[in-house]
Amino acid sequence: MSDAPVDDIRHMARALQLARRGLYSTHPNPRVGCVIVREGEVVGEGWHLRAGEPHAEVHALRQAGERARGATAYVTLEPCSHHGRTPPCADALLQAGVARVVAAMQDPNPQVAGQGLQRLAAAGVAVASGVLEAEARALNPGFIKRMEQGLPYVRVKLAMSLDGRTAMASGESQWITGPAARAAVQRLRARSSVVLSGADTVLTDAARLTVRPDELGLDAEQAALAAGRAPLRVLIDGHLRVPLDAPFFQAGAALVASTGAAASERYAAAGHELLTLGGDDGHVDLRALLVELAARGANEVLVEAGAQLAGAFARQGLVDEYQLFVAACFLGSSARPLLELPLERMAEARALKIADIRAVGDDWLIVARPVTR
Amino acid sequence: MSDAPVDDIRHMARALQLARRGLYSTHPNPRVGCVIVREGEVVGEGWHLRAGEPHAEVHALRQAGERARGATAYVTLEPCSHHGRTPPCADALLQAGVARVVAAMQDPNPQVAGQGLQRLAAAGVAVASGVLEAEARALNPGFIKRMEQGLPYVRVKLAMSLDGRTAMASGESQWITGPAARAAVQRLRARSSVVLSGADTVLTDAARLTVRPDELGLDAEQAALAAGRAPLRVLIDGHLRVPLDAPFFQAGAALVASTGAAASERYAAAGHELLTLGGDDGHVDLRALLVELAARGANEVLVEAGAQLAGAFARQGLVDEYQLFVAACFLGSSARPLLELPLERMAEARALKIADIRAVGDDWLIVARPVTR
Repeated sequence: MSDAPVDDIRHMARALQLARRGLYSTHPNPRVGCVIVREGEVVGEGWHLRAGEPHAEVHALRQAGERARGATAYVTLEPCSHHGRTPPCADALLQAGVARVVAAMQDPNPQVAGQGLQRLAAAGVAVASGVLEAEARALNPGFIKRMEQGLPYVRVKLAMSLDGRTAMASGESQWITGPAARAAVQRLRARSSVVLSGADTVLTDAARLTVRPDELGLDAEQAALAAGRAPLRVLIDGHLRVPLDAPFFQAGAALVASTGAAASERYAAAGHELLTLGGDDGHVDLRALLVELAARGANEVLVEAGAQLAGAFARQGLVDEYQLFVAACFLGSSARPLLELPLERMAEARALKIADIRAVGDDWLIVARPVTR
Repeated sequence: MSDAPVDDIRHMARALQLARRGLYSTHPNPRVGCVIVREGEVVGEGWHLRAGEPHAEVHALRQAGERARGATAYVTLEPCSHHGRTPPCADALLQAGVARVVAAMQDPNPQVAGQGLQRLAAAGVAVASGVLEAEARALNPGFIKRMEQGLPYVRVKLAMSLDGRTAMASGESQWITGPAARAAVQRLRARSSVVLSGADTVLTDAARLTVRPDELGLDAEQAALAAGRAPLRVLIDGHLRVPLDAPFFQAGAALVASTGAAASERYAAAGHELLTLGGDDGHVDLRALLVELAARGANEVLVEAGAQLAGAFARQGLVDEYQLFVAACFLGSSARPLLELPLERMAEARALKIADIRAVGDDWLIVARPVTR
């Protein structure tokens, strides 16, 4: 990657910028962008909007037309070589007469990685891979993890005070973060395949966990794309405590994960799906749930839950990323903890890597990822 | 201040830069810098090094010599008009024939504020005040608070995990922050007039709370100045639990605040001072202690204590600034809280203003100040 000529980096950066426009809409597909350059001139640009619609390469080739002949195509992900809902992009690039293809990264599916580029190389096209690869991977953490491990990328969102508390001991809570942080949470929901919560949160806060496009703080194009694809709302409710007339269920079809299947017909009649995933400990088997969600195409899962459920994800090592919204206040030493995570010894402390700290309105967002030891 | 011509701002910025070189050494005096400019040319620069030695203006006038005649003097603090350990700087400026004096701020002592400038104006010197005033005030928060309120500026330093914990429930603790954070704490100690701790911390951690010049991470000049002036170490030990052979006492003379005076001769014999400041609640009266420290010239007090004592300062509203060193880990929900600060209702939450967040090695430093409501 460090050997990539500066022009390759520049054009790939533009392709990544285009790919990012699909942040809220490509599920279950990855976000992909493409730039076609002939003799230094950009002759075609494209990005993938939605599953079932043309891939980024096709949009860019259409724009380039005849000028694609002899050109270089920059793609943020290796062009596909298989027939999915659309024909293979590798074939389209060949037919258009592209002379060189530069990919930011190979197909993350270990069983197909490199085959798209190989097919192009075998047909006499110059190929390269690995330009701005880290940036390309960061754009699709869920798609990549699902392809590589059969699991979605799990983000846990929490709102806390500077002393790491989320609510008073009595349960009294209220928004401690401001409007900018709430809009950021809306965007986190909108980019996720799944928004997941627990019965306590849904009951206590009357939470619906929907995306409200007018609260996203996005431009019209992005907001419209987000509005066109709602994330699947998943409720973990081991003992089916949330009634079907709760705001959560009234807000639309949902998936409920429980430990027993007795009531599945009642849920189905109300438009919801009940999934039985009881674990050995009497709780819903969270890992099995994530495997099931990945099998349904879920790339990114956002967990918005209380200390108990979020703590269970943490204890079981299922969290890829914490999104901690920090309000500038102290809630004090008797307030509720961030995560139900009882540790006895310093050696058990969970190491994290802080990826980002930034101001969000009057609040702060800390993005931290567990360090695998 | 917004009316200040750009040259005034530029020269005052340089004067502030000079003043900052006294950060570790001017106690109990303020940090002050001075620049003398004649016809656009800087002809003299000076800063105050240590109490008892010449003020910034005198250094700058010496360097300027005859070129001070008709020049403009930029001073980060209104020139003094009274005889202290050195003659009044206002007189020195007059004698040197300075034509104009620009101060960043007036003398913070309400009883003398403006008199130095008035004296100059009465003698025909053009005077101005308020150029980069906010920056000048930020350089001497302790001196200003002591002059205005008779209390020192109190910083509470705490090292915590991302979930707001300081040690395991068992008391097990260890440095959770890295070497860069420890050097930053050393610099906080070195700039303070007083470093204050409690019996628990001193007993549990065998803490000495000394400044170790080679760990400051400063250049030779600054490290030497810091080494030449050790902060007063103050121990709050209501029931005299810390033995005189503890590392804290072995490290040098200290001041002990207690609720009873019975043992004062024993402490005096060992080179320490015992102060009796029992409050109504059986604890040491923290406010009375701060008043006493201010009376002894303390500008900035650094509290390095556990949740109990730091919490007491917080509960009594005596904290001006929190310096929170945050390590990227979770210590979990049974670990010890940041502050012993039991609050029952959200309405009691302590609002803070985050002044700064920055990376310190692998850790993060959050500087937050209580919001007065």
